[in-house]
Formats: sequence, structure tokens, C-alpha cells
Amino acid sequence: MSSTAGQIIRCKAAVAWEAGKPLVIEEVEVAPPQKMEVRLKILFTSLCHTDVYFWEAKGQTPVFPRIFGHEAGGIVESVGEGVTDLQPGDHVLPVFTGECKECRHCKSEESNMCDLLRINTDRGVMINDGKTRFSIKGQPIYHFVGTSTFSEYTVVHVGCVAKINPAAPLDKVCVLSCGISTGLGATLNVAKPKKGSIVAIFGLGAVGLAAAEGARLAGASRIIGVDLNPDRFNEAKKFGVTEFINPKDYDKPVQEVIAEKTDGGVDRSVECTGNINAMISAFECVHDGWGLAVLVGVPNKDDAFKTHPMNLLNERTLKGTFFGNYKPRSDLPSVVEKYMNKELEVEKFITHHVPFSEINKAFKYMLKGEGLRCIIHMEA
Amino acid sequence: MSSTAGQIIRCKAAVAWEAGKPLVIEEVEVAPPQKMEVRLKILFTSLCHTDVYFWEAKGQTPVFPRIFGHEAGGIVESVGEGVTDLQPGDHVLPVFTGECKECRHCKSEESNMCDLLRINTDRGVMINDGKTRFSIKGQPIYHFVGTSTFSEYTVVHVGCVAKINPAAPLDKVCVLSCGISTGLGATLNVAKPKKGSIVAIFGLGAVGLAAAEGARLAGASRIIGVDLNPDRFNEAKKFGVTEFINPKDYDKPVQEVIAEKTDGGVDRSVECTGNINAMISAFECVHDGWGLAVLVGVPNKDDAFKTHPMNLLNERTLKGTFFGNYKPRSDLPSVVEKYMNKELEVEKFITHHVPFSEINKAFKYMLKGEGLRCIIHMEA
Ligand SMILES: NC(=O)c1ccc[n+]([C@@H]2O[C@H](COP(=O)([O-])OP(=O)(O)OC[C@H]3O[C@@H](n4cnc5c(N)ncnc54)[C@H](O)[C@@H]3O)[C@@H](O)[C@H]2O)c1
Ligand SMILES: NC(=O)c1ccc[n+]([C@@H]2O[C@H](COP(=O)([O-])OP(=O)(O)OC[C@H]3O[C@@H](n4cnc5c(N)ncnc54)[C@H](O)[C@@H]3O)[C@@H](O)[C@H]2O)c1
Ligand SMILES: [Zn+2]
Ligand SMILES: [Zn+2]
Ligand SMILES: [Zn+2]
Ligand SMILES: [Zn+2]
Repeated sequence: MSSTAGQIIRCKAAVAWEAGKPLVIEEVEVAPPQKMEVRLKILFTSLCHTDVYFWEAKGQTPVFPRIFGHEAGGIVESVGEGVTDLQPGDHVLPVFTGECKECRHCKSEESNMCDLLRINTDRGVMINDGKTRFSIKGQPIYHFVGTSTFSEYTVVHVGCVAKINPAAPLDKVCVLSCGISTGLGATLNVAKPKKGSIVAIFGLGAVGLAAAEGARLAGASRIIGVDLNPDRFNEAKKFGVTEFINPKDYDKPVQEVIAEKTDGGVDRSVECTGNINAMISAFECVHDGWGLAVLVGVPNKDDAFKTHPMNLLNERTLKGTFFGNYKPRSDLPSVVEKYMNKELEVEKFITHHVPFSEINKAFKYMLKGEGLRCIIHMEA
Repeated sequence: MSSTAGQIIRCKAAVAWEAGKPLVIEEVEVAPPQKMEVRLKILFTSLCHTDVYFWEAKGQTPVFPRIFGHEAGGIVESVGEGVTDLQPGDHVLPVFTGECKECRHCKSEESNMCDLLRINTDRGVMINDGKTRFSIKGQPIYHFVGTSTFSEYTVVHVGCVAKINPAAPLDKVCVLSCGISTGLGATLNVAKPKKGSIVAIFGLGAVGLAAAEGARLAGASRIIGVDLNPDRFNEAKKFGVTEFINPKDYDKPVQEVIAEKTDGGVDRSVECTGNINAMISAFECVHDGWGLAVLVGVPNKDDAFKTHPMNLLNERTLKGTFFGNYKPRSDLPSVVEKYMNKELEVEKFITHHVPFSEINKAFKYMLKGEGLRCIIHMEA
């Protein structure tokens, strides 16, 4: 039992007071975990584009003041009532979507969209009492996707916490708690390219490059990377991307360019941009007869996916996935083991480091499209 | 060798001179089959909604004068150069999509969209020489989807002809040459519901009821039939449809009605209407996490399939199929055997009969939504 268990913890958190305004490091009060909740000490967290969208709140519901962050690694500080499979000191990755292990989704082999704990980007409170665990001088500060890892301590539902091998370095495997697992799983669990396939990846950020890594592991013969940012192309070579297409270099839709280069289309495509046009192109660039497109990017609230139904009738398949179809508690520990066994390299996704006090720099890198993942060191 | 081989045959055909105008029984000249073509004597043909769309030519390219018809049974009269696996006297079903057995699609296990012989609704000529085999006093009369079975004799590419068990009654199994196989295959080969699944079928014409039959064979626990025409509901009971929904009976979108009746959505849906709104509803009514929707209906030229990308990200899958993913030459003979073994009943799809001279009655039944399949007897 830690000395802080059952007590309010005062610690530093990066608070987003307003949409699009720099985060402010504040002293917050973090309440003890309630029923089926755990309080985590976050050691490392990184920035994913999903944080940026909801912080910008241009195409998303604004919920402020809020503590963002959902890609992280930490240690259990204390556990609430009813929590039996985690204890203080456990090394964990918090995840934006959960696994109650009891609902139809958790019991289904096909779905990881837990009825109780699936992502809800508009909710800023804990499900147990509909309240926040964060406050500043009595003012509630809202949670983000149940994780809020831009804080030295955070409270998370036990179903959103994966217990991992304590030998795994948290400053590396923290990136597996969202983006890298999402991209990798989108290819390995959902697109499932056969050996020798041609795979197109839209968006060569960390998620897209993890999807490319999945394609390489699956034995794809060609991996075509598509991005509007030409700087992405150099990095992408390290991830087995064999060809690059910048849609801006052509007068015609990128799906046509791809069809020409591939005798009618790719076998699989994985969209990791969040841009609706890229989603449509990713679908329309797959080969008729057998092509399968997987959507990963988080769209805006009022986007519409639009295509001619004949593109579907021509025996194309379109699917979407959250978190690469991994079940967080059941499957994430084994993704960490893939890293421990050196099957999966995560270092190459980590391009920047900043101390917690300079967290706004991580936002700048993401907005400039510079690098892949920036690790934010809470204790530095 | 029949005495007509190599000769022009004069026979009766039902010619569509103009969009939407009654067909006219005319004496036509049918040229001999060319390289890789066969000439068939059609004994029985039936009307599928696809004929009606292209005859109406409201949302489709008009190609006239034309001989429609693609659901039929007949006997090989003569074969052209290079045809080795068919001979005069063989019992066959012509099919609107072909199988060359040599292209990437024909070699793929997943696709039946032959590069050479896939459906092309805008082409009115044979691929060998880009000309028609039908004429009236020298005026070419166009083909329809390579079959044009509303004629006593027709010329078809050998790749679009399935050789079947000569013991099979052609007046029954002719309906397997399009609609029934399409619906059955859409469920059995593409939707693949698990035992105990809930399946929704949109459109309870022959194609939709064949899809329902597939769901029954697969062991679905509930089969929900959706149609705007309440008369469809009585017939549908014979096909294992357990519940009926008429979208007109509700103020809200039918996908919401279905979600309420099924605790969040069906496991599988199969759309067999050709209506774009039904396609969207069929997709949006499947359960998140594992739901799969299959589109079968032929859309209009300028329809757009539109949905919020979040419906996809929530782990739904959307697919389309032609001819139930059956490969016509390789797979259709075994569908006929299913009928011969009494696994599959086709009689219940046949609700009307007319002599060839009254073919326009079949169009009236279809337009009124009366009955399922009307068999047109060429020799009556
Ligand atoms: N479904 C999930 O479970 C899940 C999980 C994590 C992240 N995401 C989403 O995945 C996406 C990628 O995340 P990331 O962290 O790698 O972001 P990122 O910003 O690092 O990478 C996105 C890349 O897409 C490129 N891009 C944008 N629009 C494009 C277009 N029209 N065509 C081609 N390329 C385009 C950008 O230039 C950028 O390089 C985001 O939408 C994020 O919200 C989804
Ligand atoms: N993809 C293929 O290979 C293939 C093959 C054959 C037929 N088809 C298509 O399948 C469809 C069905 O063919 P059919 O011969 O059974 O036609 P049909 O006219 O007998 O049946 C269609 C049914 O759909 C119903 N319907 C129409 N709009 C609807 C809506 N918005 N909601 C609910 N029900 C609606 C009609 O009332 C009718 O009962 C047609 O579009 C046809 O062109 C496709
Ligand atoms: Zn993320
Ligand atoms: Zn659950
Ligand atoms: Zn048909
Ligand atoms: Zn072929």
C-alpha cells in the first residue's frame, strides 16, 4: 500500500483551458480511484494526432478545460474497490478503449468495441459517478478518452489498463498504448495481406508507418506510401515503404495514379490520415474482385464518406477499425512481448524527446508534420 | 452436327426498339457463332429486374434496338472455332458474367469478375469482332450483357455458358442462371452468417428471397425481411423470413427500427433492391463490432453511397458482389446439383408462366411487384 493511497494527490498536469491554446502546466488535485478504477503514476507519455484534433476542436466537440493524452506508460499507484487483477507497482499501459470482459463485444472474437468502455470522445467524466477526478481549487477539469495521461497522476477504469511485462522499458513501449498498435493491428488483424500482396498506406505518420511495418511483417511485395508531406518519405524508407506517391504531384485523383501503377489497384490499403478524401481514395484504389480497404483515421464530426455503389458491387470490401482490433487487456501484453522478442522495433518511431515542462513543443512537431512520436518525460 | 450449323438462323426474338416501350416479337437473323462463341437454342427464359432497369433506361445508358434477357436455359445448337468443351446438344445456362479461366480474376479464389467477360451493360456487341450477331433486314440489333435470351436462338461467348446436368429440368433451373444463384451466393459465399445469426434482407423479390433461403440454410435464428411492398410479405414466409418490416410504417429510418428490434443491429444484411437508400440502410443496420453488409442490387448510374465514416470505424464491413461470387462455369453446375439433390427448392420462386408471344406480361408482373419469377416458354 503506497502512502498516498486513499488520499488526494497534488501533482502537475498540462491543462488545455481553451481549444487550440498552448497547454498550461498547473497543480491539480487528483482524487483517489473509485470502484473499478486505478490511479496511475505516468512516467512517459507521447502525443498522437487524436489528441491534437480534440485540442484544436475544429471538427470535434469542444470539452474544456481538459487534460489530454492517451499514449503512455506508467505504474499503478493505488486501486479502487473491486479491483483484483492489478496492484500497486504493476507496470501498465493505459488505453483509450477498454475491455470489460463481460459484454457481447468482449466475448466476441471479432470485436474490441466494449459496450461499457469503448472510446467516447465527448465524455469528460468517469463512468462510475459521472464526475471528474481532476480539479483545480474545486473547479473540475475534464478527462479525455478515459486516460488523460498529460498528468503526473491520472485515474483510469481498470478495464482500460493493460498490465505488461515489468522488464519492458516504459519510455519505449509507451508508444504501443495507441498509435503503433493501432497501425500494426490494422494491417495484421484486419487488412491481413497475403504474402506477395501490394499494399498502399495513406498517411505516413506513426500510425501509417506502423501499418507499413505490419505489411512488411506479412510479406507484402510492394508497400506504396501516400502522403501530402514530402518530408515523410525519407523516414518511411526505414519502415519498408518501397514507393512514394504525393497526391499533390498529379492532376488526377491519387486512386487513378495508383491503379495505373498497379495494373488496376492494390490488394490492400490502410488509411491513417483522418482526412475524408484520403479515406475515399484509399477505398477506390483497391483492386476490384478482391481488394480490401481499412479505415483507421479519426474523421471530423460532419464528414461524409461518399462513393459510387458500383465501386462496392465490383467486389471491393471496406472496413474500419479501432485500436487495430486488439483487445487492450487480452492482446496488448503480447504486442509488448513482440517488442521484447525483437520481432517489432519501436525505437524507430521515436524521433523526439521533451521534458513535461515543454509539452507544447510536441504539439508543434505534430502540427508541422515533423518526426513521428515525441516522448514526453514526466520526471525530467 | 445440326443442319443449321454455319448457317444464318431466322427465328423469333422479342426486340426492344425503344426505352420503356413494349417488346415486339420480330423475325431476326442470327449469325453463326464466331471464334470462342456458341449458338444456343433457348427453351425457357425468365425476367430479372436488371432487364427491366436497362429497358426503362431511366438511370442507365440507353442502347437500342436491343434484345434483353439473361436468365435462361437452353441447348447448344452449334459451336464456333476453338470451342472444345461444349458441343451441340449440351444443356446449358447462359450467364451475364463470364469465366475465361485464364485471367487474374478467374485464377483468384476470391473473385468472379473475369477481366475478359465480366458484365458490361453498355456494350451491345460481341467482343470477338465488336459486331452484333442479330439483325433485321441488315439492321443490327444489339445484345444485352452477352446473353440476349429473349430470342429463340442467341449467340454467347463460350466463357458465359455453364454446362449442366442434362437431367435437370430447364424450365426450373433456368432461374439459377441469374437471380436465385445471385441471392443464394450473396449469403452463402459473401455474407456467410454463422449459425444463430440475425440476418436482414432488403428487397423480397426473387433475389432477396434466395438470399433469405441462404440465411435459412446457414442456420440463421432470425431473418428480417424489409420491403416497401406489403404484398411481398406473404410469399416471404415460405422462404423462412421470420419478421417483416415495411419502412413506410415508421417515421424514422429503417436502420433505427432494426437496431431497436435487435439490440443494436443485425449480424448480417443483404441488400437486393437496387435502391440507393436501401443500400445505405442495409449498411447502417448492421451491428457495430462485427456486422457485415452485402450489396447486390444494381444502382443507377449517378447514385452515391453516402455514410458517416464513423459507421465504418465502428468496425462494420461493407462489401458488394456480382452473381453471388459464383464463377459461372466452375460453380454453377454444382448449384444445379443442389436442386437435383433437393437441398434447394426452385419451384417456389416460379410464380408465373407465359408463352413467348406474351412476354410483355412478364414485364407487367415485375413492375407491379407481383410474384417472383415468370417463366417465358419459347416453344409454347
Ligand atoms: N482508429 C484508431 O484506433 C486510431 C488510433 C490512433 C490514431 N488514429 C488516427 O490515425 C490517424 C494518424 O495518426 P498519426 O498520429 O499517425 O498522425 P500524423 O499526423 O502523425 O500522421 C498523419 C499523416 O497523414 C498525412 N495526411 C493528411 N491528409 C492526407 C491526405 N489527404 N492524403 C495523404 N496523406 C495525408 C499527413 O501529412 C501526416 O503525415 C489520425 O487520424 C489519428 O487520429 C486512429
Ligand atoms: N449483383 C448481381 O449480380 C445481380 C444479379 C441479379 C439481380 N440483381 C439486382 O438485384 C435486385 C433485385 O432483383 P429482383 O429480380 O429480385 O427484383 P424485384 O423487383 O423482384 O425485387 C426487388 C424488391 O425490392 C423492393 N424494394 C425496392 N426499393 C426498396 C427500398 N427502398 N426498401 C425496401 N425494399 C425495396 C421492391 O418492392 C421489390 O420487392 C435488382 O436491383 C437487380 O438488378 C443483381
Ligand atoms: Zn492515439
Ligand atoms: Zn466489454
Ligand atoms: Zn439478373
Ligand atoms: Zn477471366
